[in-house]
Amino acid sequence: MTMVATAHDAMAAENAVPAPIRDFLRVPTDPQWVTDAAAHLSTILLDHANCELKAASTALSLMHRYPLRSTLVQRMSRLAREELRHFEQVSRVIKEREVGGRTLSASGYAAGLMVDVEKREPGKLVDTLIVGAIIEARSCERFALIAPCLDDSLAKFYRGLLASEARHFEHYLRLAREAAEGTTLAFDTRLDVWLEREAALINLPTTQIRFHSGPLSV
Amino acid sequence: MTMVATAHDAMAAENAVPAPIRDFLRVPTDPQWVTDAAAHLSTILLDHANCELKAASTALSLMHRYPLRSTLVQRMSRLAREELRHFEQVSRVIKEREVGGRTLSASGYAAGLMVDVEKREPGKLVDTLIVGAIIEARSCERFALIAPCLDDSLAKFYRGLLASEARHFEHYLRLAREAAEGTTLAFDTRLDVWLEREAALINLPTTQIRFHSGPLSV
Repeated sequence: MTMVATAHDAMAAENAVPAPIRDFLRVPTDPQWVTDAAAHLSTILLDHANCELKAASTALSLMHRYPLRSTLVQRMSRLAREELRHFEQVSRVIKEREVGGRTLSASGYAAGLMVDVEKREPGKLVDTLIVGAIIEARSCERFALIAPCLDDSLAKFYRGLLASEARHFEHYLRLAREAAEGTTLAFDTRLDVWLEREAALINLPTTQIRFHSGPLSV
Repeated sequence: MTMVATAHDAMAAENAVPAPIRDFLRVPTDPQWVTDAAAHLSTILLDHANCELKAASTALSLMHRYPLRSTLVQRMSRLAREELRHFEQVSRVIKEREVGGRTLSASGYAAGLMVDVEKREPGKLVDTLIVGAIIEARSCERFALIAPCLDDSLAKFYRGLLASEARHFEHYLRLAREAAEGTTLAFDTRLDVWLEREAALINLPTTQIRFHSGPLSV
């Protein structure tokens, strides 16, 4: 389960990141993360499964909190179903490759973003949806970056997920814009602040490699 | 949105309840609930949507709590996807019939059952799964009972759900048995206690009609 990314792989991978995602994120992933992730693939697979489940739970939590926003609710329900299907698919890979049987702590990434979400409406909803869009965009970028380091079967699977996360990113961003309409919130300024926050977090060196962590500290 | 069940309807409906469900539950639904539910169909549809979302959330909560029980986790993920699809379907019916736009309090049924779930393992998991089986069985019975009181389109939809809830009931019951294996828990005695508890709750008269409430108090 150990594969080492080459400089050529890293360049090819960067080109595979869809342009709207590359343009949206403020900084690209540190190439060292790709090398570290490919060298700790079992952990990345386990953490990826956790992230899919977490994404589904977040969608359900939004459905419970905003039951009268029917567009949001329907979109989140479909999104949750898709995340759960991915969860089942990654879980099958984990089982086939016999790398399961342990639990992992979460990376500080999502929690580190969520801590700054405004506590009151309408900012709370808009912020939560912006964070959702950013996490989906980053996930999409990382699927593209890691795919060239994987064997054919897994690479194909991750490239399939990439397209799906790109759609989720667009849905979240549209819902965030819609939630800000008719309020006094300056959406573009707000989005800018969030993108800067994420850029400050994503490449922080870590002692525990995760799907949304920075590279391993040396 | 008001339809009145006749005695003939009630008999036909009772026969439509799948035999394994009728044999499993300790008491049948009070026929007065069917009359009351058919007379308050908007409320029943809204509450039904809430129940589907709640069922998906419960499944996800089990996935978070027991990440290393892979059979349970995979089963719950598929079940959650199915409940979410039903949620989307009921939500569409609510939108088409223009009966949405308000929120409802939950009936005390599920909460009334959950309060008696053992606080410690392995009883906690076994109890939660038994309660899941009972709620699915009761839902299945009620879909069968109410279908003959509905217009063709809605009746067809509810009969479709019935088959699905019957499968969920079987899955929950099997998982509960498996969770009790290798423990000191007397599964059949435990199941018996839960069925008696549910029988004591389900037909309690209420002031607010719900999918899992008793009939309206007069």
